[in-house]
Amino acid sequence: MVQSKSLIFAKIPNGYPVPGEDLVVTTSEVDISKAPKGGVVLKVLLLSVDPYMRGRMREPNTKSYSLPFIIGEPIEGGGLAKVLESDHPSFKVGDIVTGPVAHSEYLVYDDKRASLFKPINNPYNLPLERFVGVLGMPGMTAYASLYDIGELHKNKEETIFITAASGAVGSLVGQLAKREGLRVVGSAGSDAKVKYLVEKLGFDAAFNYKTEDPKTALAKYIPEGLDIYYDNVGGETLDAAIGNAKNFARFIESGMISQYNLRAGEEGYAIKNAMEIVKKRLKIQGFIVGDIAAKYVDQFQKDVQKWLHEGSIHYSEDVTTGIDNEAEGFVRMLKGENFGKAVIKYADA
Amino acid sequence: MVQSKSLIFAKIPNGYPVPGEDLVVTTSEVDISKAPKGGVVLKVLLLSVDPYMRGRMREPNTKSYSLPFIIGEPIEGGGLAKVLESDHPSFKVGDIVTGPVAHSEYLVYDDKRASLFKPINNPYNLPLERFVGVLGMPGMTAYASLYDIGELHKNKEETIFITAASGAVGSLVGQLAKREGLRVVGSAGSDAKVKYLVEKLGFDAAFNYKTEDPKTALAKYIPEGLDIYYDNVGGETLDAAIGNAKNFARFIESGMISQYNLRAGEEGYAIKNAMEIVKKRLKIQGFIVGDIAAKYVDQFQKDVQKWLHEGSIHYSEDVTTGIDNEAEGFVRMLKGENFGKAVIKYADA
Repeated sequence: MVQSKSLIFAKIPNGYPVPGEDLVVTTSEVDISKAPKGGVVLKVLLLSVDPYMRGRMREPNTKSYSLPFIIGEPIEGGGLAKVLESDHPSFKVGDIVTGPVAHSEYLVYDDKRASLFKPINNPYNLPLERFVGVLGMPGMTAYASLYDIGELHKNKEETIFITAASGAVGSLVGQLAKREGLRVVGSAGSDAKVKYLVEKLGFDAAFNYKTEDPKTALAKYIPEGLDIYYDNVGGETLDAAIGNAKNFARFIESGMISQYNLRAGEEGYAIKNAMEIVKKRLKIQGFIVGDIAAKYVDQFQKDVQKWLHEGSIHYSEDVTTGIDNEAEGFVRMLKGENFGKAVIKYADA
Repeated sequence: MVQSKSLIFAKIPNGYPVPGEDLVVTTSEVDISKAPKGGVVLKVLLLSVDPYMRGRMREPNTKSYSLPFIIGEPIEGGGLAKVLESDHPSFKVGDIVTGPVAHSEYLVYDDKRASLFKPINNPYNLPLERFVGVLGMPGMTAYASLYDIGELHKNKEETIFITAASGAVGSLVGQLAKREGLRVVGSAGSDAKVKYLVEKLGFDAAFNYKTEDPKTALAKYIPEGLDIYYDNVGGETLDAAIGNAKNFARFIESGMISQYNLRAGEEGYAIKNAMEIVKKRLKIQGFIVGDIAAKYVDQFQKDVQKWLHEGSIHYSEDVTTGIDNEAEGFVRMLKGENFGKAVIKYADA
């Protein structure tokens, strides 16, 4: 038996989650000596925390693309774990596996749940953190949606605008877009992030949305009008992007984090420029990565692992260590205070 | 020489155009005795008046998909004319031709302008009015956009919701959708139109948006959620449709007439449900018919002429006779007071 801590969804937040109230750490005893029939015992190493998870902290009967978290149970999401015991034919002790994990230090999963995992393929021996970020769901999101919805035109000079551009998804979108020859402009929430976008990731321009309002900034940095908008924030910036868009622009609606943490009774931002959808023949398309990933996943892993190994794309993580600090790390991510992909580390491999 | 009247764009309207102020009839003398080199002399017979034309009555430096009308010159749009004289190899005297016509009773066009016309093909001897409506730009709009953007799924039971459903575009969309096996629900602006949709056009349900608010009506008539929204009105109804939509719904953004006739300083309706675009993975796509018509035009003419001839689709026009009455007919159409496709008739063939 070991002591295993879990991060429990205790109640539905009003606005930003409050650590210790909405998210609470509990401890229980877990028998990790033997895998159940067909199952595995896992030690959780690394977890991805992402904006969409805020959407799962909701009333269970509010529909959305992701299932709601269950009150009183651990939150869950994509993560990396080490196999301590296995009775499953696909896994042996010591394997590093990726899949949907409950946020507990140790997990005992039956055969059905074990089948949702797969061992990582890491030929270049890349740091494990990469596999919950740029090589995990956020990277797959960036890659699949840019190609699936973006309608890249190889022979045209086009401009993409990316919000939350230094984040887990945006930073890969920007670097993929540069590889494809687009002019790349991003926004982020601090001058340090703006500097990182331009100097480290090779963006053509970037601005701090906290000090420049999006409408003015878009007119200044994209006077030609945008062809693709990669949206992670929604709200006023989406409205400004519609206003700035060229005819036939494509809007990849990956997320709208500006609208996720509204307090009870607080109204979301309403879009004023909807008429432009007709006037400019815009395409505005939402997606979730699970809908479109399958046809891109092999090429994605091959390409991005190689580019990371070569150093031709850059990626960084903002690691919070220990389950006791996780809730604070999660809220920092929701507030955009992380620098690099937000990752929670429970243990070393 | 003949006296030829024209309908002149006199000034930019504030809200709905005012006949006699914003649109004024003038008379001039025109020499119709001889075609210019390579050109034609045309007698205008029938004109299509459509919502998008309000968008052309604007400040010339406001960008949109259609060119602005020129102050002091006739308005223009799709129409049907008879060739009185021809020096163009494609046309002979007596031909009925279709193309972009200035709203004047007689037109003398050079070779370049003449080349924008083509003779109609009318094997079933259908009434000429059809060729500016269901067989003209509005019909082509319905046909091309439904197939190009709608992503019809043959093997699924899906529901389409159509606004301005008794109008030039909507009434064909609805009948095409019925042929494709969709459940078809429409809204229109009078009880008589609602009755026409259900009893004459075979809609599964319809409602009067002036007596039932769209959000409540959609919950009532489409409890299952819509799969396709064919939008001709925008504004509050678009917002309600986003709220009602199922996952993966497609929004065909054909027009937003509720937002076209705002008075100076009046704010358009702002869309509150934009978050649902991500949550439900919606696709919301604007278009103009010219962008997508080419690949559908032959099949469209063949199909729709045959169906009209057989009587398996229905279509009606609301004809205003005489250029002196045109401006009133145009405004009636903008206000939705027409019943059937709004057509202006200048003369018999």
